[in-house]
Amino acid sequence: MEKIKVTVWNEFEHEKTDPTILQTYPGGLHSYISSFLACDEVQVRTATLEEPEHGLTEEVLADTDVLVWWGHRAHKKVADEIVARVRDTVQRGMGLIVLHSGHDSKIFKALMGTSCSLKWREGARERVWTVLPAHPIAEGIPDSFSLDPEEMYGEAFDIPTPDEVVFLGWFNGGEVFRSGCTFTRGYGKIFYFQPGHETYPSFQNEHVQRIIANAVRWARPTARRADLKCTHFEALEK
Amino acid sequence: MEKIKVTVWNEFEHEKTDPTILQTYPGGLHSYISSFLACDEVQVRTATLEEPEHGLTEEVLADTDVLVWWGHRAHKKVADEIVARVRDTVQRGMGLIVLHSGHDSKIFKALMGTSCSLKWREGARERVWTVLPAHPIAEGIPDSFSLDPEEMYGEAFDIPTPDEVVFLGWFNGGEVFRSGCTFTRGYGKIFYFQPGHETYPSFQNEHVQRIIANAVRWARPTARRADLKCTHFEALEK
Amino acid sequence: MEKIKVTVWNEFEHEKTDPTILQTYPGGLHSYISSFLACDEVQVRTATLEEPEHGLTEEVLADTDVLVWWGHRAHKKVADEIVARVRDTVQRGMGLIVLHSGHDSKIFKALMGTSCSLKWREGARERVWTVLPAHPIAEGIPDSFSLDPEEMYGEAFDIPTPDEVVFLGWFNGGEVFRSGCTFTRGYGKIFYFQPGHETYPSFQNEHVQRIIANAVRWARPTARRADLKCTHFEALEK
Amino acid sequence: MEKIKVTVWNEFEHEKTDPTILQTYPGGLHSYISSFLACDEVQVRTATLEEPEHGLTEEVLADTDVLVWWGHRAHKKVADEIVARVRDTVQRGMGLIVLHSGHDSKIFKALMGTSCSLKWREGARERVWTVLPAHPIAEGIPDSFSLDPEEMYGEAFDIPTPDEVVFLGWFNGGEVFRSGCTFTRGYGKIFYFQPGHETYPSFQNEHVQRIIANAVRWARPTARRADLKCTHFEALEK
Repeated sequence: MEKIKVTVWNEFEHEKTDPTILQTYPGGLHSYISSFLACDEVQVRTATLEEPEHGLTEEVLADTDVLVWWGHRAHKKVADEIVARVRDTVQRGMGLIVLHSGHDSKIFKALMGTSCSLKWREGARERVWTVLPAHPIAEGIPDSFSLDPEEMYGEAFDIPTPDEVVFLGWFNGGEVFRSGCTFTRGYGKIFYFQPGHETYPSFQNEHVQRIIANAVRWARPTARRADLKCTHFEALEK
Repeated sequence: MEKIKVTVWNEFEHEKTDPTILQTYPGGLHSYISSFLACDEVQVRTATLEEPEHGLTEEVLADTDVLVWWGHRAHKKVADEIVARVRDTVQRGMGLIVLHSGHDSKIFKALMGTSCSLKWREGARERVWTVLPAHPIAEGIPDSFSLDPEEMYGEAFDIPTPDEVVFLGWFNGGEVFRSGCTFTRGYGKIFYFQPGHETYPSFQNEHVQRIIANAVRWARPTARRADLKCTHFEALEK
Repeated sequence: MEKIKVTVWNEFEHEKTDPTILQTYPGGLHSYISSFLACDEVQVRTATLEEPEHGLTEEVLADTDVLVWWGHRAHKKVADEIVARVRDTVQRGMGLIVLHSGHDSKIFKALMGTSCSLKWREGARERVWTVLPAHPIAEGIPDSFSLDPEEMYGEAFDIPTPDEVVFLGWFNGGEVFRSGCTFTRGYGKIFYFQPGHETYPSFQNEHVQRIIANAVRWARPTARRADLKCTHFEALEK
Repeated sequence: MEKIKVTVWNEFEHEKTDPTILQTYPGGLHSYISSFLACDEVQVRTATLEEPEHGLTEEVLADTDVLVWWGHRAHKKVADEIVARVRDTVQRGMGLIVLHSGHDSKIFKALMGTSCSLKWREGARERVWTVLPAHPIAEGIPDSFSLDPEEMYGEAFDIPTPDEVVFLGWFNGGEVFRSGCTFTRGYGKIFYFQPGHETYPSFQNEHVQRIIANAVRWARPTARRADLKCTHFEALEK
C-alpha cells in the first residue's frame, strides 16, 4: 500500500510572539505534529500561513491525502480563495483533521455551514472519554484519559449533527463537550478534535498523538473525483 | 386540540421496601410524575407491574398517546408478551419516554437493539447541559442546571447513534453521559432521559419536570397505523 | 398563536423571457407560491432579485419566520453579502425551504458545505414516495403521487447525510433521488424539496402545495438567538 | 493480516422444494455465496437451519468475524435462543450482512427495533444506484447497474434511520427502495442489501458479488468485547 501523504498546516503566529511555545513544540506546532505522524506508512510535509498561497497550492493539495489544520488568532488572514480551494479539495476526497481552535477557522465553518461557536476558558483540566470504543479513531485509546492543563471548550457547540461522536470531554469547571466528531462532505472525511491549545503540552500526550494518527488513517480517501458539477444525463429507460 | 393521553408506568417495587421514597414521592413515583404532568392539555393515568397485564392491556395502550416508563430492579418480572405489545404499539405510533434506570428495561433494549449498558455509581452530583437549545424538548430549559445528588451514569453508553442528543450530563466524579437522547422506531418517537434515581428528589426539580412535560408533547403521535406487516403491491407503471 | 411570517423569494428571471410561465404561474413563481401558502395561520410577503438588497434587508429577515427560496439561472447574481446575511439568519433560527433548482444556490451550498451537484434532464415523469409517513411534513400526503412532466434530478446528490429523508423520487428514465430532505444548521431548520421546474405545473399539484405548507409549519422557529459568537465562560465548579 | 472468517448462513429450504434454484445456485445459496466470497483474504464456512443449533454454536460465532444471513420462508423456525446469541455476538463486535428477504428475519428485527416491513412484488426489473460513491462498500461499483428480474421491495421500509444509505433501488413498476443501508449496534457493524431473491440469478451478478465482498471487509470487527453488562465505577475525581 502506498504511503499516506499528510500536509500539516499551522498558522505559525503564536510561536513568534511567545517563545515558550517553541520549547514545548520545537519548530512550531506544525513541525511537532509532523514529527509524531511521520512513519513508514505516513509521509508528512508542512505548510504555513506566511508561505505563498499559505503553502496550499493546487499542486500541494492534489498531492495531499489528509490535511491537518491548526489555526487560532489568524483565521481572518487566510485568503478566501485558498479556503474555497481547500473546501473543494475536501469535497473531491481529501481528508481533513481540524484541531482545537480550528473550530473557528474559515475552512471548518465553510464545511459545516454553522457558526461553530462554543464556550471557552483557559487553564482547565480535561478528561477525554471514549464514546465509541470500536471506532477506528479510538483504536488503542483507553476508556478515558486526562489532560492537565487544557483549554475548556463547552457546549452548546454549534455544529450540525455529527456522523459520529467518538469522544466526549469533561472539564473540572463543570462543563462538557463533543470533543471528537466525524463528518462527511462530498467524498471527503472530516474529524474535529478539541484538545491542543498552543501553550499546553497536549500534543505530547501519547493518546492525543494516537488519536490524530488514527484519524489520519481513517480520513485517507478511498476515492477522489475531478468534478463537482451537475451533469446532464440521458434516460436509461425509454 | 384534544388532550394528550399519557400513561405513567412504574414498577412500584422500591417504594414498598424503602418507605422514605414515599416521603419524597407520595403515592409512588408513578403518582408523583403524574401529578406534575397533568394539566389542561394532558390527561394522565398510571399503571404498575402488579396490575393484571401490568396495567398495559390492549385497551390501555390503544388509548395512550405517550407512555412514560420507570423501572429498575424488577425489569425481569415484566412479561415478554407485554414487552412485545408495548414495542408494537410504539412502532404503530405511541410515544415513549424512558426514565433513568429504564435504560436497562426489556422494552428499551428491544427498541434499541443494543445492550444499553453503562457505568454507574450512586451519590454523585450532576450538571445537565443543553446541547440543542432550539429543540422543543429543551424549551424553557437553561444552559445548564444541577442535580445534587443524582446517580452517575457514565459513557460508553451502548445505544445506537441517537437521532438527536439534546442534553449531556457532567458528573463530579469525572464522568460524562448522553443524558437526553431521541430515537424514532416506526411511527413512534422515543426520548430517553437519565435523571431520576428513586431515592433522590430529581423529579421535584423544575427543569426535570419541564423536560419530561416537553417530551410528552414532542412524542405525541402525528399519525398511527394499524398494521406492521409487509404488503403485496401491484405495479403502478406497466 | 401568532401567524407564521413567510417570505417567498424568487429570482424572477425566467418569467421575463418565457411568458408561458406567467400563464402557469400568474405574477411569477413567488406570487403563485405565496397564494397557496397564505391563510389564517400564515402571512406571506415576497422578495425578488431585482429589489434593493434582493428584498432581503436586515428588517425583512428579522421579521421572517420561514424563507422559501426559488432560484435557477441567476444564482451568481445573488450578492455574497446577502447570502452571508441569510445564512446567519438561518443559524439564528429562521427556517428555510429550498425548492428545486435552489439546490445549486449559493445559500444552500453555504449551509450544506458540499457541492450539491446532481444529474438532471428535463421532460421526465416522476413519482414522489413517502419514506417517513409519520413525519409532520408528510401529513396528509399519500403513499406516492406522480408529477408529469417534472425535471429529473438523479443521484448521486452531493449533500451531507440529511437529518431525515422524508421523500424519495422515482423517474421514468430509470433514476432515483432523495427528493425531500431535512437538515438543521444552528437554531434553523431546513427542508429541501426537489419538484418545481419553472415551466411545469408542479406547484399547482395539491400534494406539492401541502408539502410546502407542512414544511413551513415544521420549520417555524421555536427559539431565536441574537449572537453566533464564542463566549468566555467562568467555571461553575471550583 | 489474518484472514477474515466469514460464516454464510442459509435457511436452505427453498432449494429442497424447487430444484431449479440448485441449477442457478449449485449446492444451495450458502454454497454459492461462499464460493464467490472465498479468496486469499477471506475464509468461509457455511451453516444452515437444519444443523444442530442451526450451525450457529457458541464456538462457531466466537470464530466468526462476519456472518452473512439469507432466510425467507422459515424465519419462524429459527430458535429464539439462537437469535439472542447472534444478537449478543453482533453487539460484541461480529459483523452482520443481511441479504434480501432477511429483512424480515428475527435477528434483523431484533437489532433494528422496528417491524422492517415493506412492499413487495416478484418479477420486477431493478436498477441499483450508488448514492455514496466514496463509501468502501461502493468501491468498484458503477454509478448504476441493473438486475432483471429481481423482486421489487418498495418504500416505506420500516427501519430506523440508517447510519448511511449507500444504494437506492429503482423498479420498473414505479417503486423506490433504500437498497443498501448500514447500521451499528454495539461494537458490531451491519449492512442490509436488498437484491437476492432465491429464484433469480442476482448473486451471479458481478456487482452484487463485489458489494457483498466489500461489505464483508467493511464489517470486519476492529474490536470485540466479552461483556455487555453495566459496571459499577469508582469516582476518578474526589
